[in-house]
Order: sequence, then C-alpha cells, then structure tokens
Amino acid sequence: MKNDTGRKPVIAIIGAGKCSKKLYDMAAEIGRYVAENGGVVLCGGLGGIMEGAARGAKEAGGTTIGIIPSENKADANQFIDHVIPTGFGQARNVLVVRAADAIVALPGKFGTLSEMAFALVSGKPIISVQAWKLGEEIQQVEDPLEAAKIAMELARKQN
Amino acid sequence: MKNDTGRKPVIAIIGAGKCSKKLYDMAAEIGRYVAENGGVVLCGGLGGIMEGAARGAKEAGGTTIGIIPSENKADANQFIDHVIPTGFGQARNVLVVRAADAIVALPGKFGTLSEMAFALVSGKPIISVQAWKLGEEIQQVEDPLEAAKIAMELARKQN
Amino acid sequence: MKNDTGRKPVIAIIGAGKCSKKLYDMAAEIGRYVAENGGVVLCGGLGGIMEGAARGAKEAGGTTIGIIPSENKADANQFIDHVIPTGFGQARNVLVVRAADAIVALPGKFGTLSEMAFALVSGKPIISVQAWKLGEEIQQVEDPLEAAKIAMELARKQN
Amino acid sequence: MKNDTGRKPVIAIIGAGKCSKKLYDMAAEIGRYVAENGGVVLCGGLGGIMEGAARGAKEAGGTTIGIIPSENKADANQFIDHVIPTGFGQARNVLVVRAADAIVALPGKFGTLSEMAFALVSGKPIISVQAWKLGEEIQQVEDPLEAAKIAMELARKQN
Repeated sequence: MKNDTGRKPVIAIIGAGKCSKKLYDMAAEIGRYVAENGGVVLCGGLGGIMEGAARGAKEAGGTTIGIIPSENKADANQFIDHVIPTGFGQARNVLVVRAADAIVALPGKFGTLSEMAFALVSGKPIISVQAWKLGEEIQQVEDPLEAAKIAMELARKQN
Repeated sequence: MKNDTGRKPVIAIIGAGKCSKKLYDMAAEIGRYVAENGGVVLCGGLGGIMEGAARGAKEAGGTTIGIIPSENKADANQFIDHVIPTGFGQARNVLVVRAADAIVALPGKFGTLSEMAFALVSGKPIISVQAWKLGEEIQQVEDPLEAAKIAMELARKQN
Repeated sequence: MKNDTGRKPVIAIIGAGKCSKKLYDMAAEIGRYVAENGGVVLCGGLGGIMEGAARGAKEAGGTTIGIIPSENKADANQFIDHVIPTGFGQARNVLVVRAADAIVALPGKFGTLSEMAFALVSGKPIISVQAWKLGEEIQQVEDPLEAAKIAMELARKQN
Repeated sequence: MKNDTGRKPVIAIIGAGKCSKKLYDMAAEIGRYVAENGGVVLCGGLGGIMEGAARGAKEAGGTTIGIIPSENKADANQFIDHVIPTGFGQARNVLVVRAADAIVALPGKFGTLSEMAFALVSGKPIISVQAWKLGEEIQQVEDPLEAAKIAMELARKQN
C-alpha cells in the first residue's frame, strides 16, 4: 500500500470548482478508489471536482489534503482533513502539482489547464478523463476507475 | 479534540535544522503532547527540531505534516506523514506559518526568526521556549510541556 | 506613451527557452516595437524567445525586466535590465503573468502553456502568434508586429 | 557605476509602511544617494519608508522597483517605476530580499523583521540604521548616508 519512501501514494484530483452532479460523482468515485487502495487524496480544497474527490475519499475512510488559494482554512470544503492555506491565489496550483505523486485531471477551466501544464513541465504522471487535450504526453482514459488505478500504479513508481 | 471547523488543531513546531540532543528531545516531548491531545504536528520537514517534533508525534500515534524547501519529497525526514514539497527554498517558511493554528518556537537561527516574524505579521499565536526575544507579543515559557499545552489551547480558539 | 497610472505599459513576451532563429527574430521584432512605442518588455529572463524579446527592446533603447526561476541574477540573459530572481522554479511563471499588462505568446512548450493558462485565469489580455490553441478567448494573429500593436493598445486600457 | 554583470547595483530599502516625517526623509536621503551613484532603488512598493526611498530616488532621476503584496499595480506608490505585483501578501518580502544586491534596513515592524531574517538566511549584505538588533552579523550605522554608501559598495561586490 506504500511506495518506496514508506509514505502513501498521493493522488491529486483536479478539475472545475463548479461542476455537474455527474462529474462530482465521477470525482468521488476516483477519490474512493484511491482511499480504498491506500492512497491519499490531494486537491485544491474548494468545491466541485475538488469536493467530490475529497468526499469520496472520506466516505471510504481515507485521508485528504487541500491546498487552498486563500490564507483562511475555513475556505476549504468540509471533506478536507489537512488544509494548507497559501495566500497565493491561483498560484497555489503549482503547489498542488508539486505535492502529487500522480494526477487525475477531470474537466475544468483555465485553473485546471494551468495545473496540467505544470504537471507536464515537471514530468509528473497525469491521466486525463475528458480534460484538456494537450498532446500525446497525457494519457487519456474514459473510465474514472481505470484512471484512478493507473494513477495509483504510476504514483507507486514515484519517489 | 477538535476545533470549531471540525479539524484537529495544527501546531507548528519550529527551530534549528541542526540541534543538540537536549533540544531534539524537547521538540519530541512537545510533538508527543500535541499528538496525545488530538493535534496535528506541522513543521518544516527537515532535521533537528523538525525531526524531533515529528518523531515525538509519530511515537504517540499522531499525524505529521512537513512543508519542505525543495520539490523532492525524499528530503523530508522519515517521521513526516504528509510532505508538501514547495520548491521555494526558505520562502516555504511563510507557508509553515500560514498552515499553523498556533506555533511553538524553540531555538533556531535566521530561518526560525523569519517564521517568528511571519507569525507576528499574521497575528498567529506563538509561544517561545528559549527562542529569539522579539518583544512582549511573544509569550515566553521555560517548560516545553507548558508551551505545548498553551499552544493547543490557543489553536483550539482559532478558526 | 503612458497608461492611466502614469506608468509605461508592460508587455510580457512569452515562449520557448530554446527556439529557431526565425522565432528569435520574431520575438526581437515584438520587443523592438514595444520599446519604440513607450512600453516595457517583460519576460522570463532566460534564452530563446525571452532573449530575443529583450534584445529587440534593448536595441531600440528600451527597458527590460526578467523574472527568473532561480535565485541567481547571473542566470538572466544579458539584455535584461532588471532581474527579479524568485527561487520558485517554474512557479515564477505566475509572477510573469501578474506583472504584465498584456501578453504576447509565441510558440513554446508547457511552461508557456502554464503562462497562457494563468493569463486566462486572471483575465489578462493575451495575443497568440502561433502559440497553443486554447479556445476563442485568445486572439490569434499571424503578424508579430500586429500582435505587438494590439498588445500595446490593450495594455494601455489596463490599470 | 555598474557591477560585474553590467547591471546597476540594486539596493533594497526596507522599513515601516507608516512612519514619521523624519524617517520618511531619511529613507529619501538614502534613495537619493543610491540613484545619484548609479544604483536602482528596490522596495516593497507601498507607503512610509518604501515611499520615501522611492521618492528620493525619483527626485534624483533614478529608477525604482516595487514588489508589492497584492496583484494590483495601483496599490504601489506613485514613485515606483516598475511594479511587480505578487498576490502573495507578506510572503512577497522574500522576493524583495532575493532581488536585492544589498539591503538598508530602517525601523519597521514584523514585516521588516521578516525581511531582515531572510537577508540573514540568504547571506545578503544588510546595513541597519536603527532597525531591529539581531546580532553582530548586521552592521549598524547611525548616519543614513553612510549606510547608503556602504550598501552600494557591498552591492557592487555581489553577482
């Protein structure tokens, strides 16, 4: 359940701060899989995809970390165990990427795009489920569970 | 055991990256108290005081977070559960302060001083055990356990 | 020559750190136009497009600012007047965007993509000359001089 | 007039955001000396000491850079030529230090203290004129002009 450093794999789940019920549930499904398989769910700590992912993980008894834009922990959603308030605004996106061992990207706007770009810059493994198309370096899958599984495998190879 | 937001109080324990056995044990004692009383231990994730604090918390079955200067999780000490790699160098000190609900400062050099300064800038509660003397806004105590107790009380009032 | 705040318009020119002679010259042409028309050229301070842009501006007697990834000013190219060393690695990209009044994007890889994403997040005007296609919010032009002209006009409307 | 890299020495002048007329004038005197002797004045871009320093430099025909806490350039004082908006709040202090070749510290509160701490962490030359007493590593002088002179000399040895 752990990677080489003895720590749990950290999977960032990224995507829109506001989203449909369908996408929210998809994020929850991924979060649940990660938690059930010994991973930590990391996200931007706010609503939409971020909340869905954290909720899924918590419902499965997992651990969640949210790196938020403001300095105010109260801005994090209720499913975040550990809030890292940055006060950096959207610049916190780079910290989300840096703290992840692998990333699952769901549909989102430009904030999500910036996280995907930073993942590519830093060579972090990233799996896309219907997110921005940015070339062949990003693996595209349709099934959220398959994305979660691949992300966990890639994360375990990190560190 | 929890503060108003339903999250555990987060106590940052700051101080030198290299220190005497005596200070290491003092940090461990504080970390242990925090963990035993339902708090999370936060630190800069490296050696010395940071390692002592994390070790004490882990030996008491607690949870630890380390916000480190580099982008490389492997730089964190082995007692850190959740590593937040920043790639910001010593600028990560401000993130340690922002993520804390209260801070216990042990002796350290200028990095510690910068964290104490940021704590004062942001109005975060800070208790000093033999750390830098910076005026009356910082409560000074001699006994590490007393510092830990006060920090936990002040942290619970935050958020 | 100045915008409402009395300051010169700041045009960020972004793109690959290594590029063809053709793209280098294109960046220089944009830098020259900005300088000749009273603007300041801002960039990431390194090679390729960044160097071309700064060189063009300097050859026209203009002023250049480079916000660089490292803490070491010596890493900036020789055409940068004012070096802002960050020590943040690619996270400095967000600072390039925040310091710009308008942005001209030339072809680049994922670092450039992250800057374009941040520009879109923050609503900064951005003109693309053969850069990443990210939807209708980014104005596409073929001629670098036209891009420079549009960027200067949009920058003057900022602040 | 220039240091080895061919760039002008950059002197950060730090201190309180609100100050007495006497301190404001002292900051202006330092800014003027720096500008008259070929240096660039860098500061946090807001009021008090920061404004005095920038004003002195501009009145002597010099160049000024302000690295500000917010993302909004309009928050900078009117004597700043080049505004670097960060959106990082007081965390921008570390960027002020990193962009300086030498630092003159005038009296200030905890923000100033954090900048002095970061200067000490990074080994940047720092001259104190009645600022925080932090040990022998900081040279103390009484005369602002002497501080400016020493800072320019030390800055020229940097890079």
